[in-house]
Amino acid sequence: MNFSSEILEQAVEEISKLPGIGKRTALRLALHLLDVPIIQTENLTKALSNLVNEIKHCKICNNLSDTDICHVCSNIYRDDKIICVVEDIRDVMAIESTHQYTGKYHVLGGKISPMEGISPADLCITPLLKRIKEQKVEEIIFALSATIEGDTTMFYIYKILGDTDIKFTTIARGIGIGEELEYTDELTLIRSIQNRIPYHQNIKKD
Amino acid sequence: MNFSSEILEQAVEEISKLPGIGKRTALRLALHLLDVPIIQTENLTKALSNLVNEIKHCKICNNLSDTDICHVCSNIYRDDKIICVVEDIRDVMAIESTHQYTGKYHVLGGKISPMEGISPADLCITPLLKRIKEQKVEEIIFALSATIEGDTTMFYIYKILGDTDIKFTTIARGIGIGEELEYTDELTLIRSIQNRIPYHQNIKKD
Repeated sequence: MNFSSEILEQAVEEISKLPGIGKRTALRLALHLLDVPIIQTENLTKALSNLVNEIKHCKICNNLSDTDICHVCSNIYRDDKIICVVEDIRDVMAIESTHQYTGKYHVLGGKISPMEGISPADLCITPLLKRIKEQKVEEIIFALSATIEGDTTMFYIYKILGDTDIKFTTIARGIGIGEELEYTDELTLIRSIQNRIPYHQNIKKD
Repeated sequence: MNFSSEILEQAVEEISKLPGIGKRTALRLALHLLDVPIIQTENLTKALSNLVNEIKHCKICNNLSDTDICHVCSNIYRDDKIICVVEDIRDVMAIESTHQYTGKYHVLGGKISPMEGISPADLCITPLLKRIKEQKVEEIIFALSATIEGDTTMFYIYKILGDTDIKFTTIARGIGIGEELEYTDELTLIRSIQNRIPYHQNIKKD
């Protein structure tokens, strides 16, 4: 690209470092910011600065939080005995928006992935083990992606804790509500037949 | 979305004000910034602040520039007698990257569009007229999009200047190099037949 302005070039360069944003989109965004009132850009830069400088990880569950202890961990009405292990804050947000889960969370901050060079040491696993040891945890729900990395991570944690009397569960894998059978992939279909549930249980759940 | 952090929510809110970026993408970008070294976010916010606070419009051609007079206008080796009228800096960048055009530019900053409420007064037209009056301009090349708005803008400027002895040209409309005839739209095809050029001229140009 043949920029007439170094300031613009610099801005495009920095914006295009964001994932999924190429040089062309970055230029479009930069020119958009020049079109809108300057206060919008000031709000944006302030929000980004705040984000990286002031956000904290909850000291108990490792979720992103404005305070040292997040609002789920500090909520005394939530069940301490059930911990739902998830990958990141997006999973917490997804489960929270169902308004059905009343236990606590533990955010690993990723999945074990040798391909991407993420080892168990890079994840927030030790604090989870400590938590389980100190609290009377009765159930660990693994709510990780149904991928090899997710399964590896589950297996790793399960192996460490396997000899305790904690109940380990994973969220159900199967056909999504409203999904058509013919478009479901084979593996999901196989699993959903293997893990079939009694019909009356299904009715009760709905 | 069910955010656990107001700081994060604020950042997502501001990022999603950018065109083409929804809440989900904004969240992905915000979480990405939390993953990368803090210096990257600092560079980004600094570049954006610089962009909106320090970039200038060239006092002659209205192009974006770091200085009062842009590098094209201040280049004494470029032909003052030809002015290429474009919509915005992206068009200047596209033409400059061909390294073939040696005249000057004039950036309108948009096109006349009653639908979007953009009138001639919103565009940088008066300085263009002033420039033409003061300099010995011999040719105006309209390099605007081949849309109704582009055509309207061209016609508007042409009507004002029509009684001068300036030569008015538009960039050629036709089949792009490497484009297949069968996929070209009808209007382009009609125009390219109407404005056909002698074969020897075509050879010379290549």
